[in-house]
Amino acid sequence: MNVPQLATIPSEDERYPLKSFLADIAGVDFSIDIVDRRRRSRDFFWYSPILHEQLKGSLADVVVTPRNEDEIVRVAAACAAHRIPLTVRGGATGNYGQCVPLAGGVVLDMAHLNRIEWQKPGLVRVEAGVKLFYIDLATRPNGFELRMHPSTKRSAQIGGFVAGGSGGVGSVTFGGMREPGNIVAARIVTLERKPRVMELRGDAAQKISRAYGTTGIITVLEMPLAPAQSWVDVIVAFDDFVEMVRFAHAIAMADGIVKKLLSPVQWPVPQHFTAFRPYCPDGKSVLSAMIGEVSLESFEIILASFGGSITYKAPSEDVPGKTPLYEHAWNHTTLQVLKSDRGVTYLQCLYPHDRMVDAVAQVGKKFEGEVFQHLEFIRLNGYMTASGIPVVRYSSPERLYEIMAGYEECGVMIANPHVVTLEDGSRYKRVDVDQLGFKQQVDPMGLLNPGKMRSFVPDLERAAG
Amino acid sequence: MNVPQLATIPSEDERYPLKSFLADIAGVDFSIDIVDRRRRSRDFFWYSPILHEQLKGSLADVVVTPRNEDEIVRVAAACAAHRIPLTVRGGATGNYGQCVPLAGGVVLDMAHLNRIEWQKPGLVRVEAGVKLFYIDLATRPNGFELRMHPSTKRSAQIGGFVAGGSGGVGSVTFGGMREPGNIVAARIVTLERKPRVMELRGDAAQKISRAYGTTGIITVLEMPLAPAQSWVDVIVAFDDFVEMVRFAHAIAMADGIVKKLLSPVQWPVPQHFTAFRPYCPDGKSVLSAMIGEVSLESFEIILASFGGSITYKAPSEDVPGKTPLYEHAWNHTTLQVLKSDRGVTYLQCLYPHDRMVDAVAQVGKKFEGEVFQHLEFIRLNGYMTASGIPVVRYSSPERLYEIMAGYEECGVMIANPHVVTLEDGSRYKRVDVDQLGFKQQVDPMGLLNPGKMRSFVPDLERAAG
Repeated sequence: MNVPQLATIPSEDERYPLKSFLADIAGVDFSIDIVDRRRRSRDFFWYSPILHEQLKGSLADVVVTPRNEDEIVRVAAACAAHRIPLTVRGGATGNYGQCVPLAGGVVLDMAHLNRIEWQKPGLVRVEAGVKLFYIDLATRPNGFELRMHPSTKRSAQIGGFVAGGSGGVGSVTFGGMREPGNIVAARIVTLERKPRVMELRGDAAQKISRAYGTTGIITVLEMPLAPAQSWVDVIVAFDDFVEMVRFAHAIAMADGIVKKLLSPVQWPVPQHFTAFRPYCPDGKSVLSAMIGEVSLESFEIILASFGGSITYKAPSEDVPGKTPLYEHAWNHTTLQVLKSDRGVTYLQCLYPHDRMVDAVAQVGKKFEGEVFQHLEFIRLNGYMTASGIPVVRYSSPERLYEIMAGYEECGVMIANPHVVTLEDGSRYKRVDVDQLGFKQQVDPMGLLNPGKMRSFVPDLERAAG
Repeated sequence: MNVPQLATIPSEDERYPLKSFLADIAGVDFSIDIVDRRRRSRDFFWYSPILHEQLKGSLADVVVTPRNEDEIVRVAAACAAHRIPLTVRGGATGNYGQCVPLAGGVVLDMAHLNRIEWQKPGLVRVEAGVKLFYIDLATRPNGFELRMHPSTKRSAQIGGFVAGGSGGVGSVTFGGMREPGNIVAARIVTLERKPRVMELRGDAAQKISRAYGTTGIITVLEMPLAPAQSWVDVIVAFDDFVEMVRFAHAIAMADGIVKKLLSPVQWPVPQHFTAFRPYCPDGKSVLSAMIGEVSLESFEIILASFGGSITYKAPSEDVPGKTPLYEHAWNHTTLQVLKSDRGVTYLQCLYPHDRMVDAVAQVGKKFEGEVFQHLEFIRLNGYMTASGIPVVRYSSPERLYEIMAGYEECGVMIANPHVVTLEDGSRYKRVDVDQLGFKQQVDPMGLLNPGKMRSFVPDLERAAG
């Protein structure tokens, strides 16, 4: 064949029949510019030196930017017709390559689906591409706010948070996204020749939670809101990290104290908290907290029986131009270090709720000087516990795996952030069985973000249909 | 002495020098009418046949009804000067004789201290005699409500709730009154010759929590509020009580589901729920619940995997003339039965949080047909658990104590509601050590509600001063 074509459009003898695909979606925005494709094939996987090596070469063949659900249906149909992988991209603030197209193909950029459909008291319905920051901005004047958000609230999209995340600021009260009641409904498009649009309600919506977009293209979400509170950002400095954890645990367990964030971080990590450096005394570990204004007095009274002192206290103003305290918690804690020190990486773990403080002391002693502790208090299955996101001085993959084994020996579960599959990254080492079954229905050919759900085997009979 | 006096005023050779006392408080409202004194020397202790026998004869010598704190200071000074016991009376909806004057003397009726001092977002400051119903009425238009209230919300006063109660509707989310943060401040008057007015803030306010008014006369309280939610009353009927508890526990542990009440009640108790009888099918146990409107869909989805069905669902309207669902929970559950069957009484117990459902099944089997189960889900010390308030077919004090022992053998703690002292009624069988010490400072002569804090021994030296 010698049909004239733009030099930059890959020809059909390349890995996918792009030309036919682009013809099918005529009218939908796309880009095949190499710089653009490179940029939009990445997320924050470079936190992990292991993932960095593994993913740095992954590249979309085309980036498609739909304007609405109808266009998504057309893109999905075209992908199914031509057997082209489709990987959905939200704000791309994930850390495990959630939106990296391992097999190339189409990256579907959701940025233009950014409409808030409606608000009711306690409930909001939004398109998947809306940034979390704008949801809070729109709901707070009505007295409500998102129950939880990642530390990347300012750039992350709600769809990406639900598909690629698990919880964040607010999970100390509401638990993670997976807790029943934390996703009210999701609307998805299936990846089939004749894509279906499905409304998943209640628990059914969990089929798309932290599935990295392998179980349908999320177009709309209905999310429960919390009554908006007056939050106060507080930093408390302690000489001793374990003592600080003991204090944070006391606050965590006090159900009369309203809170949104309890994030203990061990020195010397706080020396990288540039925006708050004056409030992080040399040599001290710090607790970053968001406390309801109404509970501040009680918080300080409990603090009086522990050895810490408040170095910073101010209303949580989430306004552009000011770095929020929450950008020093969750995965941002590691990021603050990485900004000036690329010799570190991190882990993600879960402490046993019934011996958390002991386990923290135990792993702390075991890896002193190599692992710098950072916890996030969260509710999980009805219990208060802590997730650990320690900053690790990186030497080699082998040593990193040794450290993980050392944590597990102390009864701390590891959710490995240095792998790309749902199974390996889960602390259960398996994918949710409902999600696996559901994928057969909505993506029988296995074209949605292939390589991420490793237990999935396409149903060839169905796929052929 | 042959001074002319009203025949009804007890003379000074009676147990207390009332005449001198009344002269000291001239201008303050009081009553020595025998009908009035009888009426205002009682509470709901008759729930307990044991307490009924013990307390039915207790009688105040005079009932004083102050208009403000200044008058309370005068009354306290006069009581100290003449060594007359003083027992504070709120709404008198307690069940253990909290406001029954065991040694006679003065009953101080707080009904006229019913002013709301101020409201801020999340906070209200009120005089002790304000009814809980009116606090919610005043705060809800501003978007807030009390974190918790007893089932006697319509007649109980905030001071009495704090002094005589422990928690209630709302404790499934915020825990009891004793959890740090649930009482922000209390203002009290001491019982001394020169009474002091003290402001207790934060944890210090716990010195007056559930102390039956033995540790100072509470005049003002500063209480934290919860953001007001749209609540829905729900009744779910189950064939099997234990299966119902299993369902309620799943809801209790789901931190994404907003709730204010989870009250499982075993058949045949619901046959006494007159106002809701059509929704309580014969032979079925029922769960009374108050669920946030935003979480109702999730609640129903979880219910689908259990064997119950919803028989009633309506917005929680707390309006005069309509019996609220919460008047079938907490201590009202027993009351609904007592209205038509005086042959029953009740117990109060606390289930172990880590084997609650098993323990419920165990005691259920042990006392089948004699004890009818009723639980209230609550948070305690950061854990979700359940308080039990079973209805007991009454035969004798001995058998009642046998049943209590049987519960304790199953690992269920008993807070005996058939005793009048703080110590015996506590599941710890002792009074809070801080409260005991504090009483020496604020009531050295032991005149506040004498007989209720049995570990207290007056400091004779200080008392003489």
